[in-house]
Amino acid sequence: MIEVAAGIDVGGTTTKFGLVTKEGKVVSKKRISTDSSVEFNEFFQDLFRRISDLMNQNGTEYSLAGFGIGAPTGNCFTGNIDNASNLSWKGKIPIVRLTEDYFKLPAFLANDANAAALGEMIFGAARGMKNFAVITMGTGLGCGLVANGDLLTGHNGHAAEIGHSTVFYDGRLCSCGLKGCLETYVSGFGLLRTLREIAERSDKQGITWDAINNTNLTAIDITNAALRGDQQAIETFNYTGKILGMKLADLVTYFDPEAIILLGGLAKADSLILKPARKEMEKNLLDIYQNKVKLIVSEMNNDDAGILGAAATAWNGLNCKPELR
Amino acid sequence: MIEVAAGIDVGGTTTKFGLVTKEGKVVSKKRISTDSSVEFNEFFQDLFRRISDLMNQNGTEYSLAGFGIGAPTGNCFTGNIDNASNLSWKGKIPIVRLTEDYFKLPAFLANDANAAALGEMIFGAARGMKNFAVITMGTGLGCGLVANGDLLTGHNGHAAEIGHSTVFYDGRLCSCGLKGCLETYVSGFGLLRTLREIAERSDKQGITWDAINNTNLTAIDITNAALRGDQQAIETFNYTGKILGMKLADLVTYFDPEAIILLGGLAKADSLILKPARKEMEKNLLDIYQNKVKLIVSEMNNDDAGILGAAATAWNGLNCKPELR
Repeated sequence: MIEVAAGIDVGGTTTKFGLVTKEGKVVSKKRISTDSSVEFNEFFQDLFRRISDLMNQNGTEYSLAGFGIGAPTGNCFTGNIDNASNLSWKGKIPIVRLTEDYFKLPAFLANDANAAALGEMIFGAARGMKNFAVITMGTGLGCGLVANGDLLTGHNGHAAEIGHSTVFYDGRLCSCGLKGCLETYVSGFGLLRTLREIAERSDKQGITWDAINNTNLTAIDITNAALRGDQQAIETFNYTGKILGMKLADLVTYFDPEAIILLGGLAKADSLILKPARKEMEKNLLDIYQNKVKLIVSEMNNDDAGILGAAATAWNGLNCKPELR
Repeated sequence: MIEVAAGIDVGGTTTKFGLVTKEGKVVSKKRISTDSSVEFNEFFQDLFRRISDLMNQNGTEYSLAGFGIGAPTGNCFTGNIDNASNLSWKGKIPIVRLTEDYFKLPAFLANDANAAALGEMIFGAARGMKNFAVITMGTGLGCGLVANGDLLTGHNGHAAEIGHSTVFYDGRLCSCGLKGCLETYVSGFGLLRTLREIAERSDKQGITWDAINNTNLTAIDITNAALRGDQQAIETFNYTGKILGMKLADLVTYFDPEAIILLGGLAKADSLILKPARKEMEKNLLDIYQNKVKLIVSEMNNDDAGILGAAATAWNGLNCKPELR
């Protein structure tokens, strides 16, 4: 019998799930749309039936050890998803209790960025590392921090919300109500805001300005424009990378990590954002930290990353933290 | 036989040492001036003889379990004090090796702020806490961070140098060469710089302006002036507390700590700095953190704090981290 953990990656539009071995092999996986037209209880009961089916389809070779769930605002202490802004269900979703009630097996929850950090630690670029940070740059900016080999959860399960650390104290207004949050600069939305600002300051004749006004521009579009040599797009990435580097220097000053691993849509821009980020980070570092921190892009297969992170949350919980149960 | 650890607190002008039980009772203590007119080896051999004498004087009731050393730039991984800017000895002082060679007992080193954090965790205000920060505000600004019950050391032993995190990217020039470091605002020197700036902007007739130009003004003097109602001194603390609060909000966003414990000369100003710091911290926090973090001044006896921190470094090393040896 080969033990597997079920990893569930709950996203705003899609929920992915799969069966993952301790070695990080995805034995089987599926995805469904996160159907918010029904009550969350109904959605998850349906999801659980699909996971049971997945186990049954894979025969008697595998035994299910437990569940790991990665979800926006998932709280590892309470086992609840709390008022996730990109899920339609509001209030508290007691996902750990629902899962354990259905399967009579242990379940572990992490917010999506923390699940990603565990994924990198157990299956990815951070294998063997004891001190590192993972930064997810998608629509927003998430972070997972590992120190002394343990995920930092904080006193209330809210550690590492560095998307809401401050870059400029009178900076851009954030959706959280604060000003100058890192996320307002370094995220999909932040990138677009920067491009708009740059385009407004320019003669507004560039191809990107047309694009801003005529389409739903994404980080991928801006990346492609920069790769084609569009100056406004390149300037946008330079500024975004610079801001990221400034705050990464602060992060290094707090944690002295071995590596910072970037993932998500913006990380796909690779050297467009990495190069200015690395330069600005080094510029703002004390000499004891200079040229020591690896700043790298995750090597994880994008399609499996969420499932692997969720499954890593299960294996981490099952193997390392029995006292949390 | 009662086990004691010897705590050695190496400071720029004074070195304190004492014998401390597991419960934090200081059985015996002494202080000598940190004599930098001799080689470090000579100084420490003399110090070791004095510690042996202290043990002998306390009779056969006590047994010595090990050594804890708190020192500026003390590195827990290498066991060396590295180029401490406020010690006259330059280069690497292999203090752990010297101690272990002399006594044939285990020795543990921490930088002074990390030793203070361990002191608070084992003997002070952070007893029972798993996630907290200690901030020492003396000549400079030091920090020790504890998460999941462990001191954060980082990959190279340089975690928590938040005195050199950035407040303003084009701010005050720091002695480290960077601009806008927290320490240039929140420290004894920072307080004096702020007072000068405020006095220069004013009519320069205030008592504090006279004092600035005529004496070696200290944080204590500015505190006393503020307590007497001197408006420039009060304004100086308001600004210093505000800057502290701004960066404490970032710290909370990274760590989600249960408490932040302040100590050192500036902490003695108590509500003069605490009140504006707390107000500004709360103002810059996401709602999930608001009104949850205890911001408190250390209750530790100032005279014993260094020795207790150093002894806590010994007990922490002896009890919790055998794999570090």
